[in-house]
Amino acid sequence: MSDCLFCRIVDGEISADILYSDDHVVAFKDINPQAPIHALVIPRRHISTVADLDQDTAGIMDHLTRAANQIAQDEGIVENGYRLVINCNEDGGQAVYHIHMHVMGGRAMNWPPG
Amino acid sequence: MSDCLFCRIVDGEISADILYSDDHVVAFKDINPQAPIHALVIPRRHISTVADLDQDTAGIMDHLTRAANQIAQDEGIVENGYRLVINCNEDGGQAVYHIHMHVMGGRAMNWPPG
Repeated sequence: MSDCLFCRIVDGEISADILYSDDHVVAFKDINPQAPIHALVIPRRHISTVADLDQDTAGIMDHLTRAANQIAQDEGIVENGYRLVINCNEDGGQAVYHIHMHVMGGRAMNWPPG
Repeated sequence: MSDCLFCRIVDGEISADILYSDDHVVAFKDINPQAPIHALVIPRRHISTVADLDQDTAGIMDHLTRAANQIAQDEGIVENGYRLVINCNEDGGQAVYHIHMHVMGGRAMNWPPG
């Protein structure tokens, strides 16, 4: 059994409020939402940080983004807008070491982004 | 001559502090930095928003991210960490309608990300 929280969500060992799923990614609601719409999109494959992406993982960012766009569509926030955020390592604010893309909308996001 | 500010930077008609360039993307310093390291990575091709990405633009997000990672490496912020942000439309805080990925680091980023 994996000790990665997000791998366990992918495997169905830990429940989450799933918003989207396909062969490459799983998306679910952030349990500590910072906006009316706040989803996390993760690759099914365990990759610790965005800095670990390489030729071998080509396509992952496109998959994450397509899923994020689908969620934005489903939640009706495309026209008003949304923000995509990926945190890498401590200064970036990364809390779980399995790549995740935050999709946030339903309110005007402020600047700077943290 | 394009009326898109970022297309004009790609074409060299407007100068920018270029940090990275390849066949797919150009990256330069944000003129209004919100962190010690604050770069923008843009595709050479004009695409207005991240919501416009589709099969026809496959690979763009991977290209942007690989460039962002290269900048993080060059600027020495990989280990401490960094944040990647893409704003889509007004609620997202998008200021220029040519996709751009913010790469921010050199300080601890706060939460929420705006």
